[in-house]
Amino acid sequence: MGRSVAHHLIADHLVSGTMTPGEEIGLRIDQTLTQDATGTLVMQELEALGLERAQTEASVQYVDHNLLQADEKNAEDHAFLRSACRRFGLWFSKPGNGVSHPTHMQRFGKPGTSMVGSDSHTCAAGSLGMLAMGVGGLEAAMAISGEPVYLRMPRIWGVRLTGELPPWVSAKDVVLEMLRRHGVKGGLNRIVEYHGPGVATLSAMDRHVIANMGAELGATTTVFPADDAVRAFLRAEDREDDFTEILPDPDASYDDTDEIDLSTLEPLIARPSSPDNVVPVREVAGTEVGQVVIGSSANPGLRDYAIAAHMVRGRQTNDAVSFDVNPSSREIFADLTKRGDTLDLISAGARIHQAGCMGCIGMGQAPAVGHNSLRTFPRNFPGRSGTKEDRVWLCSPETAAAAALTGVITDPRDLAEKVDLEWPDLRLPERASVNTDMLVPPLPPEEARHEKLVKGPNVSSLPDFPSLPDSITAPVLLKVGDNVSTDEISPAGARALPYRSNVPKLAEFTFTQIDETYPERAQQAGEDGHIVVGGDNYGQGSSREHAAIAPRHLGLKAVLAKSFARIHWQNLANFGILALEFREPADYDRIDQGDTLALHHLREQLPGGPDLGIRNETKGEDYAVFHRLSERQVDAVLAGGRIPLLARAGAG
Amino acid sequence: MGRSVAHHLIADHLVSGTMTPGEEIGLRIDQTLTQDATGTLVMQELEALGLERAQTEASVQYVDHNLLQADEKNAEDHAFLRSACRRFGLWFSKPGNGVSHPTHMQRFGKPGTSMVGSDSHTCAAGSLGMLAMGVGGLEAAMAISGEPVYLRMPRIWGVRLTGELPPWVSAKDVVLEMLRRHGVKGGLNRIVEYHGPGVATLSAMDRHVIANMGAELGATTTVFPADDAVRAFLRAEDREDDFTEILPDPDASYDDTDEIDLSTLEPLIARPSSPDNVVPVREVAGTEVGQVVIGSSANPGLRDYAIAAHMVRGRQTNDAVSFDVNPSSREIFADLTKRGDTLDLISAGARIHQAGCMGCIGMGQAPAVGHNSLRTFPRNFPGRSGTKEDRVWLCSPETAAAAALTGVITDPRDLAEKVDLEWPDLRLPERASVNTDMLVPPLPPEEARHEKLVKGPNVSSLPDFPSLPDSITAPVLLKVGDNVSTDEISPAGARALPYRSNVPKLAEFTFTQIDETYPERAQQAGEDGHIVVGGDNYGQGSSREHAAIAPRHLGLKAVLAKSFARIHWQNLANFGILALEFREPADYDRIDQGDTLALHHLREQLPGGPDLGIRNETKGEDYAVFHRLSERQVDAVLAGGRIPLLARAGAG
Repeated sequence: MGRSVAHHLIADHLVSGTMTPGEEIGLRIDQTLTQDATGTLVMQELEALGLERAQTEASVQYVDHNLLQADEKNAEDHAFLRSACRRFGLWFSKPGNGVSHPTHMQRFGKPGTSMVGSDSHTCAAGSLGMLAMGVGGLEAAMAISGEPVYLRMPRIWGVRLTGELPPWVSAKDVVLEMLRRHGVKGGLNRIVEYHGPGVATLSAMDRHVIANMGAELGATTTVFPADDAVRAFLRAEDREDDFTEILPDPDASYDDTDEIDLSTLEPLIARPSSPDNVVPVREVAGTEVGQVVIGSSANPGLRDYAIAAHMVRGRQTNDAVSFDVNPSSREIFADLTKRGDTLDLISAGARIHQAGCMGCIGMGQAPAVGHNSLRTFPRNFPGRSGTKEDRVWLCSPETAAAAALTGVITDPRDLAEKVDLEWPDLRLPERASVNTDMLVPPLPPEEARHEKLVKGPNVSSLPDFPSLPDSITAPVLLKVGDNVSTDEISPAGARALPYRSNVPKLAEFTFTQIDETYPERAQQAGEDGHIVVGGDNYGQGSSREHAAIAPRHLGLKAVLAKSFARIHWQNLANFGILALEFREPADYDRIDQGDTLALHHLREQLPGGPDLGIRNETKGEDYAVFHRLSERQVDAVLAGGRIPLLARAGAG
Repeated sequence: MGRSVAHHLIADHLVSGTMTPGEEIGLRIDQTLTQDATGTLVMQELEALGLERAQTEASVQYVDHNLLQADEKNAEDHAFLRSACRRFGLWFSKPGNGVSHPTHMQRFGKPGTSMVGSDSHTCAAGSLGMLAMGVGGLEAAMAISGEPVYLRMPRIWGVRLTGELPPWVSAKDVVLEMLRRHGVKGGLNRIVEYHGPGVATLSAMDRHVIANMGAELGATTTVFPADDAVRAFLRAEDREDDFTEILPDPDASYDDTDEIDLSTLEPLIARPSSPDNVVPVREVAGTEVGQVVIGSSANPGLRDYAIAAHMVRGRQTNDAVSFDVNPSSREIFADLTKRGDTLDLISAGARIHQAGCMGCIGMGQAPAVGHNSLRTFPRNFPGRSGTKEDRVWLCSPETAAAAALTGVITDPRDLAEKVDLEWPDLRLPERASVNTDMLVPPLPPEEARHEKLVKGPNVSSLPDFPSLPDSITAPVLLKVGDNVSTDEISPAGARALPYRSNVPKLAEFTFTQIDETYPERAQQAGEDGHIVVGGDNYGQGSSREHAAIAPRHLGLKAVLAKSFARIHWQNLANFGILALEFREPADYDRIDQGDTLALHHLREQLPGGPDLGIRNETKGEDYAVFHRLSERQVDAVLAGGRIPLLARAGAG
């Protein structure tokens, strides 16, 4: 049976396992992408690994998230990231150069390659026929170090596109239709692969819009074929040499299937506060709007801005509306300016912001409470805008610009009729404003070797991670219930987040939402460490690594729980914390906070199999527990985590 | 003896007093300017005054300071300000439309008029032959209500300009030379008036640069004549009809004099961290730079950006430098874009920000600790950038752009020689990109009357201010030492400042830097109120009104001190708090925190003369005290402040 594009890409990078859905596979990684919010920790991980030089074809550090610089911390992170790129042989994309995903697509995207990125929308690169996945920071660091990435083989979900989009309907409406049909969990453990005759009617940037928001479907990634549209895109970027055709075999088969006739779609909008809360725009037309924002990696193409500029040209935005425009990259900002679009937007009343993520990750442009904000962004989770009780809607640039003009939600088709707007032939330039000066290339190895990391007062190094002792005899410092989230373990928010580059400082916030005394008690317990006991689904929620690193820094040796959430469980293993589960869940009730637990002969027992015994020395009882660690993970945990394991092996 | 321009302007607006330096004069005010950081309180004051409609020729509310919108508070302030403009008949300049000073100059500036603004750089309008002064919020509110503004007649300081600026030296260097010579207190109680043959060589926007930073000299204001350069400026803005020639009389005399030969000036720079810390650029050349910022009301003209764009055209900024550009108004951003300057700036690596004050008031673009930041801004006080321990330098756009290219402080003349840069004839357009759609005009009175103020959860009304009781018998809740600043009375900073529109909430921070228990104890003391005892120079520092309003809200009736700082003393009178001084400073030592003090027959005693008796009921002692209030001020204090006084008189 023939292979799909996804099968071709996986087969070309497979270093272990077979392509059977559910089986663990290892993949060779060609490129990596990191951004500033997650990248500072990745760079500290490279430092801790003792990496000499990046082993990938291209590893690029973008600065696009934290651009506001309300105090010195962000600028210090930027200086640190620049120095780390110089030291480790990475590309550095300066602050304001653009959002990682479109910028990477323009300068580095290459059909047939694999990429991981410490950003959930890394999957956008699937628009060019790449296999690109969002991962945690340490996975990105490992990939930079030349290590494979391991995951369970996803199911391949073939979505056949037919027909052509009608006027005033665009790529955003396609992915909103997918979200309307399948919801935010529809893509779990799947790769979405678009195929069929409708694909050819979409430009590479249109595909970026659709692939980007595959993240909102929960998909492992999204892929498109590398066809003539991709070739045209690369030609416009002066990189036609990087083109390789990648098409599905004529008899390609898919594990799951769906079909969309593009010609039947209409303008859609996601209501507050979930990307799958999708309705036709006409159903909510007339709703008052206080803000319209055009930007982000979800609608990053020149056409997405150009269509908005075309619609507002010679008109004035409603005086109750703040019309914010965030060019997604400098290249696109330059093209918009050459075309006259920038002038049209300014003249119509737009607030033009530096190229970056900005409001999409709650860094600026937060709306007023109760005021509807229409955005071309990928996500509208409650509060993500920076405003508690926000009302954020997701839509296409056409629908957004229509609301900017009228002050109410408006189907762009109805506006076009009212103000006599033709659906334009935007005639986008055949060549983009390519400017490679804006990406600082890696230093030559002989120079890089002598570079020093630049660390402002708020940038630390990763703490040391000593190896796991053969015996643990330590108190239960905290006993928690079911569904404890990583937000409760290591909080985000304005108080804690500025310390994302400073583990010792961030650790002071650990578990404080549950028990304010934990950090101090953990430090008193000292080097012999301590244990946490949890209920079901321990560590659910955000993937943040800090929820493993911060308690580890405070001396956490083991977590004993009824069950673990998947990503946090992996993070615990990555950072050398022993995650154990009760054979008999009722034993959870027999342990009290303050009890001393003992585990012995770990170096012999852990590799020997899943089962271990644990003794409650306070109660004089024994419990049966087990672990789910793979052989690789046992090695990592015994070594104190994957970083010391690799550092010892002399990675790089 | 002939009159100077300043004398003409004052004489034309004089409603009380005579033009004798030091004597109190009252001035009729034609225009007002408010910005969002101070404006929310001004609008609450108008609400409390029961104003029906603005009485000025033009009152304009700008939104330029708090544009970052990291959470909902700023957007709520913007919505509140818009609604207040609709209610009270003010112009509303939307967020992103530009910095108040250049925008006002472009759209409303008019030779021969008077203006007050709740912003210290209001004096910039002196560039057009206006008499324009920065004042506290309540003074601005009073002017909007049609009340005169009172001040002591300043000395007129005639600065004669001769010669012409050489290439690579510009207006910023003129005012830096003034600061080098005279320091930040050089202009106290003076109006700086530029005259002489050199004036004609400076454009109206050049004069804006010089007049703006008159604030840094401490001057009451700065004036230039309204001559052909002003006429040309107004013509470019489609407002030649607003031109009136205003020149000094041929035999004009000045109270003080100075002279600058423009042809002898060289590029100057103010070192960290005071605007008068001025040295020639060549003296500090070679110093490493991490950031360069072009923008703010201090260098707001098209030429200031155009010269920078010319210098970086076809070149790339140094990769260690963040090159931030903040267009000062949408109009200038539009003109820059038409000229191709925007494209040149983007291509050279600039981060382009929305039109506004941004980094100049510490709202974004904060530099890293220890990294030098060169800015075309007016101020570099320590920490004002948002970064503690910042290193901010002030210079011309020429000097700033040179550093952006080289990464080190560089005299632009030396750069020009090195890279073969001609001093350009910038050929600025004869007509500006005028767009009056961007300013929302006042509603007609019959519509305005029915408008409701839009108050988000964080916008309150001003609290009520009951009249002063005839007798005060109240405890001393706090006794403080000398030089207590308004920062200690009502703190700024990230915790408190977001509540600038919410007096009840802000009041919870009152005096907490000195005594955390004060707000709670004040509330317990209740309606009978309380007294604060202070040492010398009580209330020094920032002019913020909150330092009077917030403790007043908590029940403060009187402050008894050895002496008061001038502006806070005025704010106390404005908001109905009795400011009393010891006849015998040693009595300060006889009072303890917790003592009960009593003042009687205030309605009879206060108008009768400065002297009063005060009884310490706890100690059984009497002290002689006095006040410095004018008759107008006594009326205001007895009424509970100027707002209830005017509200009762039925202002507006």
